Amino acid sequence: MEREKALELVKKQLTEHRYQHTLGVMETAITLAAQYGADVKKAELAAIFHDYAKFRSKDEMRSIIVTEGLPQDLLAFNAELWHAPVGAYLVENEAGITDREVLDAIRYHTSGRADMTLLEKVIYLADYIEPGRHFPGVDEVREMAKVNLDRALIKAVQNTILFLMKKNQTVYPETFFTYNDLINKLED
Amino acid sequence: MEREKALELVKKQLTEHRYQHTLGVMETAITLAAQYGADVKKAELAAIFHDYAKFRSKDEMRSIIVTEGLPQDLLAFNAELWHAPVGAYLVENEAGITDREVLDAIRYHTSGRADMTLLEKVIYLADYIEPGRHFPGVDEVREMAKVNLDRALIKAVQNTILFLMKKNQTVYPETFFTYNDLINKLED
Repeated sequence: MEREKALELVKKQLTEHRYQHTLGVMETAITLAAQYGADVKKAELAAIFHDYAKFRSKDEMRSIIVTEGLPQDLLAFNAELWHAPVGAYLVENEAGITDREVLDAIRYHTSGRADMTLLEKVIYLADYIEPGRHFPGVDEVREMAKVNLDRALIKAVQNTILFLMKKNQTVYPETFFTYNDLINKLED
Repeated sequence: MEREKALELVKKQLTEHRYQHTLGVMETAITLAAQYGADVKKAELAAIFHDYAKFRSKDEMRSIIVTEGLPQDLLAFNAELWHAPVGAYLVENEAGITDREVLDAIRYHTSGRADMTLLEKVIYLADYIEPGRHFPGVDEVREMAKVNLDRALIKAVQNTILFLMKKNQTVYPETFFTYNDLINKLED
């Protein structure tokens, strides 16, 4: 799917603020993909669609998780996680995207997972550091992303876990597994 | 087993420094047990024996983990974790302690686990806050422990996860599960 068509489909799903965020993720994902050797067109497409389900109601997302066989343990964790796997489902079934790598990059852009693909890492990180993001620690991750994708990703995941712990919120197990997996594969 | 006999057995296994730590854990565990309604004698016994395996060689601990059917995933994580389940095994087989609650308090004193018993919480926390402990954040946990066992425990587990993440070390999954489980059960 061409960029213009994809952006047109996505724009209808998002607020203006979230659409601007999406454009930031798209630009950042293209840059990271080119730098680290991921497929630039797939990165562009996954970035455009990554928040496709962001404004669906909790009821609709819960229903899709239950009826479409998405991981049921999501329901016991923060609903902020739901739009990623639900988005992968909707992007396939409403927008007709069938590329498994693109769909998985959407699916895991919030939780991460063990054994993330390069494309998944690019989208996760682009979502975290796109120029519209402003929160403590984001500049450090931006700098790291220029040098080492995995180290930047580890810092982003650590920050996410820290953020949740400061609020006494649970952490989705897949996020922990992402962290351990990245640490285990880190080359000194 | 009486306190004097238990201390005599343990003293032979430890350095003087670690023995003094053990006495601190014992006193703290007795205080916490009395305050929160755990069995004081079991808390005393578990505290005395909690570091029984601390100075066994990695080779011996690895061998016990493999041959005695302890969780094999321990071998893929920091060896600092091993002395707790190996200790539970040795305390049963060398010191003749058979009380399952006491053995489990020893077994989970480093990793924690989901659904910790009151006794397990007392030993985990006593090990963290005994008077000989000096590290950033320990005073805050000491103060919390006077008011709310679970909130103090959550803070201790959070600090442990944070400490490991700062060193870019993996976190044993059971520790994450401990954290999530305590958060889920926290009453506002």
